[in-house]
Amino acid sequence: MALLLDINFDEHNKFGAFERELPDETIIHWQIEKDNNPDLAAVRYAVVWKPQPGLLASLANLEVIFSAGAGVDHVFEDPLLPKDKPVVRFVDPDLTSRMSEWVVLQCLMHLRQQRNYDKNQFKHHWQELDQPIASEIRVGIMGLGELGQDAAKKLQVLGFRINGWSRSRKDISNIDCYCGPDEFDDFLGISDIVVCLLPLTNKTKGILNAGLIAKLPKDGAIKPVIINAGRGGSQVEVDIVKALQSGILGGVSLDVFENEPLEKTSPLWDFNNAIITPHVAAVSSIPALARYVATQISRYESSGKLDNLVDTTRGY
Amino acid sequence: MALLLDINFDEHNKFGAFERELPDETIIHWQIEKDNNPDLAAVRYAVVWKPQPGLLASLANLEVIFSAGAGVDHVFEDPLLPKDKPVVRFVDPDLTSRMSEWVVLQCLMHLRQQRNYDKNQFKHHWQELDQPIASEIRVGIMGLGELGQDAAKKLQVLGFRINGWSRSRKDISNIDCYCGPDEFDDFLGISDIVVCLLPLTNKTKGILNAGLIAKLPKDGAIKPVIINAGRGGSQVEVDIVKALQSGILGGVSLDVFENEPLEKTSPLWDFNNAIITPHVAAVSSIPALARYVATQISRYESSGKLDNLVDTTRGY
Repeated sequence: MALLLDINFDEHNKFGAFERELPDETIIHWQIEKDNNPDLAAVRYAVVWKPQPGLLASLANLEVIFSAGAGVDHVFEDPLLPKDKPVVRFVDPDLTSRMSEWVVLQCLMHLRQQRNYDKNQFKHHWQELDQPIASEIRVGIMGLGELGQDAAKKLQVLGFRINGWSRSRKDISNIDCYCGPDEFDDFLGISDIVVCLLPLTNKTKGILNAGLIAKLPKDGAIKPVIINAGRGGSQVEVDIVKALQSGILGGVSLDVFENEPLEKTSPLWDFNNAIITPHVAAVSSIPALARYVATQISRYESSGKLDNLVDTTRGY
Repeated sequence: MALLLDINFDEHNKFGAFERELPDETIIHWQIEKDNNPDLAAVRYAVVWKPQPGLLASLANLEVIFSAGAGVDHVFEDPLLPKDKPVVRFVDPDLTSRMSEWVVLQCLMHLRQQRNYDKNQFKHHWQELDQPIASEIRVGIMGLGELGQDAAKKLQVLGFRINGWSRSRKDISNIDCYCGPDEFDDFLGISDIVVCLLPLTNKTKGILNAGLIAKLPKDGAIKPVIINAGRGGSQVEVDIVKALQSGILGGVSLDVFENEPLEKTSPLWDFNNAIITPHVAAVSSIPALARYVATQISRYESSGKLDNLVDTTRGY
């Protein structure tokens, strides 16, 4: 039996992790071996990020598709994706922790005016700036899955006031949960900091736009801030740039972009109050991914069960 | 009866807070009224930060001295400080929360290489950097009072591994506590990030020096980092600068300095991996201070009891 690996995290593709975790499987590293036409007849499992279109459909004996990340939109971009195969997302406690590290860091940077202090530092300028306390700030989390709930819990410990918004109704202790399009405006009206952790779907595409920005509170302890570590396709960068230029937005933190890498000419790079990171908020660790896949395969082979299945009709 | 206020936080001296909280007391704003020789005979309480030397000794009917901050070294700098008067420190949940916001922010900035990402951003350079996860990082907290314990709890929620060191033996769940000079080197040897929240005393003066830096781990997931939000007198800045230049230290975050404001000519301002803030980690809010003092006075007048008394023989 074989497992096919098609993950293109070049800088992170530490070899050996899958071989160590699955010593009895043949591991085919597609990016390296594809030119040699490896025999794919034995492939029952595939671990993919952005699969080469049609590759998965060509695997006659494929049983399970594993996404190398929590997001699966990249998998569904394959127009030939076999619709009858289960797709498992990578839900990794490490990945969730890393995402929350980044989200908490960004919320604190805006709360504590870190970029303004940075600017003063490099001018050798000693000046205290206004700084509300976390409990004066309402953070609105868009997306209340594993990632959103973990970030919410950690931000709450630091004193932030948390509200959440999600597609389906959630009941989470200590968090006011808003649901669906009907409650979206109410949610936005009390979100000093919006944290977007949404998957990319037809309904979330371009959701972070001028219309949303206009609904954020004007009477908060800080000017509204947008933080996006979900998907770049959820944001309309031209609207965000305009809102930064006009001063409607107090700041943004963006880890994802409409096109990645972010174009060298994007105006986003140059705002002091726009914190730009290169899609690193929650990077999958290959050893953790290998452990996860091995555990799932072992369980699947003994019981036929899989965790964290994607609803292929919803696409996330 | 009167209360004398001698607090010089110029930018924060919001008037009216003490008058609102203590409507029956005469409030004497020393910095404003001193030239008019106000009558001090009725003063029973004084709220001070860096009291004018001899001022407290001149108050014939003084009963209680309140420090306007958690630190009291500024109070004890008065050579004529009346030794028989109780000194109460300002322990404010807001102040503790603010301090933890700053400490968590700084730990995350070093963990996530924020300053390197900042540098890349302004060069329009998209590059993923190595980033260990918080659970690989051992944070050693020097000083396990209110502030240290709160920071420890919050860092732990984010995944950091926490050790603590204090003068007296502490027993805190989930934290390995080291105590006194005998256990100091062991503590330093497992502290990838040292967070100093110590008061300034004869024993802590200059404690953050080349000797301490040499004892920090060389095999950690990141190069050692020093974070100081205690007192500037605890650090030897010339040693810190040398360790930044040589690369022994991976970074520092300093909110306090040997001399404040930090001299314009200090080399500390210009290191990309030195985060400098102008003694703002935990700024007392005057309304919160006024509420605190009013509550204490009310309790003192009814029961003779005071909370958060300073041990005047130890000086903290």
